[in-house]
Amino acid sequence: MTSVLIIGGGGMIGQKLALSFTENETVSLLDMNFPANSDVNAHKILGSVSDASIMEKALSNRPDTIFYLASVVSGEAEANFSKGWDVNIQAFWSFLAQIKDQYSKSDGEYKPKVIFTSSIAVFGSPFPNKISDDFLTAPRTSYGAQKACCELMLNDFIRKGFCEGLAIRLPTICVRPGKPNLAASSFFSGIIREPLNGLTANLPVSTDVRHWHASPRSAVKFLRHAARLNRDALTFNSALNMPGLSCTVEEQIEALRSIAGNEVVKLIEPNPDEKIIEIVKGWPQSFETKIALDLGFSAESSFEDIVKIYVEDDLQGSVIKI
Amino acid sequence: MTSVLIIGGGGMIGQKLALSFTENETVSLLDMNFPANSDVNAHKILGSVSDASIMEKALSNRPDTIFYLASVVSGEAEANFSKGWDVNIQAFWSFLAQIKDQYSKSDGEYKPKVIFTSSIAVFGSPFPNKISDDFLTAPRTSYGAQKACCELMLNDFIRKGFCEGLAIRLPTICVRPGKPNLAASSFFSGIIREPLNGLTANLPVSTDVRHWHASPRSAVKFLRHAARLNRDALTFNSALNMPGLSCTVEEQIEALRSIAGNEVVKLIEPNPDEKIIEIVKGWPQSFETKIALDLGFSAESSFEDIVKIYVEDDLQGSVIKI
Repeated sequence: MTSVLIIGGGGMIGQKLALSFTENETVSLLDMNFPANSDVNAHKILGSVSDASIMEKALSNRPDTIFYLASVVSGEAEANFSKGWDVNIQAFWSFLAQIKDQYSKSDGEYKPKVIFTSSIAVFGSPFPNKISDDFLTAPRTSYGAQKACCELMLNDFIRKGFCEGLAIRLPTICVRPGKPNLAASSFFSGIIREPLNGLTANLPVSTDVRHWHASPRSAVKFLRHAARLNRDALTFNSALNMPGLSCTVEEQIEALRSIAGNEVVKLIEPNPDEKIIEIVKGWPQSFETKIALDLGFSAESSFEDIVKIYVEDDLQGSVIKI
Repeated sequence: MTSVLIIGGGGMIGQKLALSFTENETVSLLDMNFPANSDVNAHKILGSVSDASIMEKALSNRPDTIFYLASVVSGEAEANFSKGWDVNIQAFWSFLAQIKDQYSKSDGEYKPKVIFTSSIAVFGSPFPNKISDDFLTAPRTSYGAQKACCELMLNDFIRKGFCEGLAIRLPTICVRPGKPNLAASSFFSGIIREPLNGLTANLPVSTDVRHWHASPRSAVKFLRHAARLNRDALTFNSALNMPGLSCTVEEQIEALRSIAGNEVVKLIEPNPDEKIIEIVKGWPQSFETKIALDLGFSAESSFEDIVKIYVEDDLQGSVIKI
């Protein structure tokens, strides 16, 4: 029986990832908080990954695969510099150190596969039309810098043989269910989610803004596929850019219109926010992701599909076109 | 009166850098060790950069420029994984955190310029013929991963305005005076230095190995020039590749022959070492360094010049061609 540990298992992706496993797999979730209402039936460990006693508990059944999703999001890492670096780097370092300890204590017998969620925020402008797999990581946010450091750390632990694993760089995940979060990218989901729930949504940028998206369902598929890959077969170095869909805000809105109608689209209120406009300017718009596609990763090919996945997975399929 | 702090001021480059300042500049050196015999007349602070009381002492006169040279070298970082990450990352992080503290305590008045010595070890093969300024950092050693993380950290502190500064990526510094060190690149200096001192030298690689060199004198010039630059004028992101000389071991040997004669060259003993051959395969051979050249950085244009600088600066000009 394979066993899985999801660090950050209380988060949106963590919960959906947990639901993707069958009853034949042992799934443990570690997080500082768990949602009150959840369909997830898994062993929950409440605490910090930096706490040695918590990690000892989490590693006690020697999980084969560890998904590391825990992170302070981009907006919060930018607003709270120390918290961002503490959680996004120091906690990850402390996690890796404990993995290495277990490796040593077991004389090299315990060697889990660590799948780390990095982000396209590791890239900074200027960008080519399509970002290639070997594009320079030159982040322009604290969040991006922290993710890039984690990639370097994980790769060195893997190279030295203390664990296996892979860092995958997720597109912006859209449509996120639930409430807006502190990520500066939050509006990309908000302009779809809020109208579909009968609420008004702020659009802080112009409709010609282009960005790189994938659904939460794709994120789960990326993680599961990454865990199945044989890293030895990979020729790249640090982390793998995940496939996604490049589309403009206008294309997002038209997809919403085709699925939910004009009245729903009217709930989107243009409300330019210079701060967000400035941040978004420095973000990637499109990728090539040749290596990932060759390895069998895939994402949505239209934003309508992304909207439909939100409706199916998070609104239980109920949308009335008005 | 400008004041300068050199962290790692007891090392080879630190000592030469200290000697480059005039009596009108206050120079303090911080290190865990200092050479017993030294021409350097500077304020010495013995201790660790991670020790808050030591750093308080080092920052008490609010140095305008801080050169951060302290590092566990490549070979040692590879052999002693934990020590490498502790010294090369955690200590640098602790240093940056203290700089930020001083910035906050002074209400943003104290904002030194931090010049960090990174390395071409941040790059990993496969390489193009000449590595460009925006080539991907994908290190294949712990040392390289650590330097790349430090670059990311420093840049985020600079971006947030807690300090000014620049990370410069040094070529292999050749000819290093003194004893061989634990760097895997040590032989590049050894095959020149040992024969010039009447000693035999091991050559662990083939003579067609090509590498990227600059003299210690150039290293000091890079650091001094970096400290004078206005970072705002720079268009690049993370760190600046320094100019150097691309040459083969054979070209190194012929330069030695032209300066010191056949008998001296005979002291080089080919002694292939598979471990070093393997490491060196993953090292850069040549760079473009367009940005650095445009900014006025320069290095030697022949290996003979590099040998002559060693003779002038470290052998007091005394070589008898035999």
